[in-house]
Amino acid sequence: MFSTILIANRGEIALRVLRTCQELGIRTVVVYSAADRDSPAVALADQAVLIGPPSAKDSYLNIPAVIEAALATGAEAVHPGYGFLSEDPYFSEICEKNGLVFIGPPSDVIAMLGDKARARAVMSDAGLPVFPGSRHTLDNAGEALATAIEIGFPVIIKAAAGGGGRGMGVVHRRSDFMRVYADTRAHAQAIFGDSRVYIERFCETARHVEIQILCDAYGNGVHLGERDCSVQRRHQKLIEETPSPGLPTELTARMGADAVRGALAAGYVGAGTMEFIVDQDGSYHFMEINCRIQVEHPVTEMVTGLDLVREQLLVASGEPLSLRQEDLVPSGVAVECRINAENPSRGFMPTPGQLTSFVPPGGPFVRVDSHAFTGYRIGPDYDSLLAKIITWAPDRDQALARMDRALAEMRVEGARVHTTRPLLREILAHPLFRDAKHTTSLVDQMLGDGVTR
Amino acid sequence: MFSTILIANRGEIALRVLRTCQELGIRTVVVYSAADRDSPAVALADQAVLIGPPSAKDSYLNIPAVIEAALATGAEAVHPGYGFLSEDPYFSEICEKNGLVFIGPPSDVIAMLGDKARARAVMSDAGLPVFPGSRHTLDNAGEALATAIEIGFPVIIKAAAGGGGRGMGVVHRRSDFMRVYADTRAHAQAIFGDSRVYIERFCETARHVEIQILCDAYGNGVHLGERDCSVQRRHQKLIEETPSPGLPTELTARMGADAVRGALAAGYVGAGTMEFIVDQDGSYHFMEINCRIQVEHPVTEMVTGLDLVREQLLVASGEPLSLRQEDLVPSGVAVECRINAENPSRGFMPTPGQLTSFVPPGGPFVRVDSHAFTGYRIGPDYDSLLAKIITWAPDRDQALARMDRALAEMRVEGARVHTTRPLLREILAHPLFRDAKHTTSLVDQMLGDGVTR
Repeated sequence: MFSTILIANRGEIALRVLRTCQELGIRTVVVYSAADRDSPAVALADQAVLIGPPSAKDSYLNIPAVIEAALATGAEAVHPGYGFLSEDPYFSEICEKNGLVFIGPPSDVIAMLGDKARARAVMSDAGLPVFPGSRHTLDNAGEALATAIEIGFPVIIKAAAGGGGRGMGVVHRRSDFMRVYADTRAHAQAIFGDSRVYIERFCETARHVEIQILCDAYGNGVHLGERDCSVQRRHQKLIEETPSPGLPTELTARMGADAVRGALAAGYVGAGTMEFIVDQDGSYHFMEINCRIQVEHPVTEMVTGLDLVREQLLVASGEPLSLRQEDLVPSGVAVECRINAENPSRGFMPTPGQLTSFVPPGGPFVRVDSHAFTGYRIGPDYDSLLAKIITWAPDRDQALARMDRALAEMRVEGARVHTTRPLLREILAHPLFRDAKHTTSLVDQMLGDGVTR
Repeated sequence: MFSTILIANRGEIALRVLRTCQELGIRTVVVYSAADRDSPAVALADQAVLIGPPSAKDSYLNIPAVIEAALATGAEAVHPGYGFLSEDPYFSEICEKNGLVFIGPPSDVIAMLGDKARARAVMSDAGLPVFPGSRHTLDNAGEALATAIEIGFPVIIKAAAGGGGRGMGVVHRRSDFMRVYADTRAHAQAIFGDSRVYIERFCETARHVEIQILCDAYGNGVHLGERDCSVQRRHQKLIEETPSPGLPTELTARMGADAVRGALAAGYVGAGTMEFIVDQDGSYHFMEINCRIQVEHPVTEMVTGLDLVREQLLVASGEPLSLRQEDLVPSGVAVECRINAENPSRGFMPTPGQLTSFVPPGGPFVRVDSHAFTGYRIGPDYDSLLAKIITWAPDRDQALARMDRALAEMRVEGARVHTTRPLLREILAHPLFRDAKHTTSLVDQMLGDGVTR
């Protein structure tokens, strides 16, 4: 096992990775921007290195600064968390060239799967169902429209370099196509520096179900069950749970087997997530693969008893998988709610500010992953995730009742600080969600602005 | 199920009971003293009733005020928590007379088992091993000494009305007997208003192992495994864990079966705990039964997935047990550490004060049961328990590493406020504890004041 790991991230996920390192007796180095001086991960790390100003571009995305910090502190491996550099094949490659173990898949695998159109083709070749759509990126507007007509509306135009719900546009009518196509390309260029897009059939009344996979460097892979992430606001997840309510076990078992087969076909190593869309008729289609730990990984931990970051470190250090598929029998139901510092009634606009009170929930089967505390300053520079609240229970009704209790007792207060907490409680109480009859459109429906955009 | 429950307690256990009530949709009434105005249980309850000044005698032990609050608020049942009125047969009886369900065993059972000498006799008659000792209380000094000589030194003199580690005296030499006998009786009279004592053989190098039991009103009972509570300071528990490390499963299974048999023989109803002393030769002896929820119940919850307060409420509302012994297969290892506001290097003297910072630990498989928060005022009126930190893992090494990580990241700060947190970390690192070779004398040995007093 590694003796020193550099954590190239911030917020709750930096703390999450640090916790596992501490439990394993691994020395931790945390890099941070000037905005995160007072964060718990910086305070708790064995060593912390300031790598730049608040701007992510100049700090958490600053590859030379991160590599320099790793080399200067004697780190043997780098954990990228999620977001930032976690799915950047160039960063992974630079790590490898500098003799640092990148905790994630090999750079060529990230590069291949990071091109969403190519990933679709790889999975299709491995026998996974993919939506009708373009096999390659479509850089010519006329060709793109022809493909959309062939697929049939509604379609979704997605940035090839996208992910995490950003860089997408839904087209319901042929007459809207050219506008959305141009917008999505411009948006993709602006966010990802890459305007390439591809097109898929769009499924409005679907569930978002993903499979957690874990593969070692020796061609072994297992899946750790599914997570249902259908409660989203504008393609960003708000509530995640496992198992997926109302889906037959037989279906999710098939998805799990498909996910492992697809991952191994792609040469995947490490923890990853295969995202699928499940239609109301029970058919499912591969959407994308995320080459990193997910925000919502705790629900899988709660039902399997595993520490997924620990598993990542074991695989990255060259250990073969010790888990066998037949031993992985999940127990009970786990739910995660994301407390974001944002205002749902104002288009989920982030609300920076200082917390005058932060009292996390506690008690039986409640887990809190958060870097916040009373006095914490929410800056304007990063994403608005403040805390993840996870509950477990033997069945879904109890897990949801526990979640509602946890959200009710939690205190997050600050002048001008809004959070998703009240909205989350409204969703928990919604009959469609209670009865597991919701789709990815639920939140937009509740907020009264119609179809997902 | 009840529609309104009155919680006749304070601190973390009032919050613990309230949480389960909220999850079950039960309306809660919390009674409180003037010292607890700002406590989370009072803030979160559907209704809160001030019943007196800080002094426990005039508030949490004030039976007429508690009963009046219950009747005035339409409560159908009373949850007494632990301590205060939880094992007072008179309170239980008054509840019954006022048409209130007391959440605990019937008053006559509490009365019988609360007399520790009588409880010993009942369990001995049920075939449980009890230490050589007096079958009745010994009110005559000469008779007491003769009994002690017959048992053989060292002996322990215990208050018949005692419990929770209070009202005990160990005698190593015959020449000390009369002094300790007189002291213990005087102490028992002062604390419990009852000077009666009994005598048992004292086992210095033993482990304290207790069995959680659960019985319904129809003569059914199960046990939920053991808790090892050997890490104590002056007979008060500091660390508890399950399973008991190093004890053969066959032994704890026998203790479990004995505990259920003993409880059913006594007509027990509800959740309770049978405390045993396990000697180094693997023999065990019944010590006492606690007729209430225990401080350390969370470790049992973590390995069984059960909510013990929920089980208490189900039994109290007349439900038959739905659990079968053969289905109760505990999973993994759970440990609890008690963060008390007290100074271990000054004889565990309580250190009241205001918390300038309270940041509980979080992350995977960490549970926090606490009523504390940043700004909380620790008063001088009640016991010093500030927080319970519970960790779970597949094995003991990982559970202890997780606990040490949790204690390391936790922040509890306040002018003049000391806590057991540093001592707990020292115990976790101690080779005897690591190797599960510790006995109930460990902490006193570490603090250098020799044998348990």
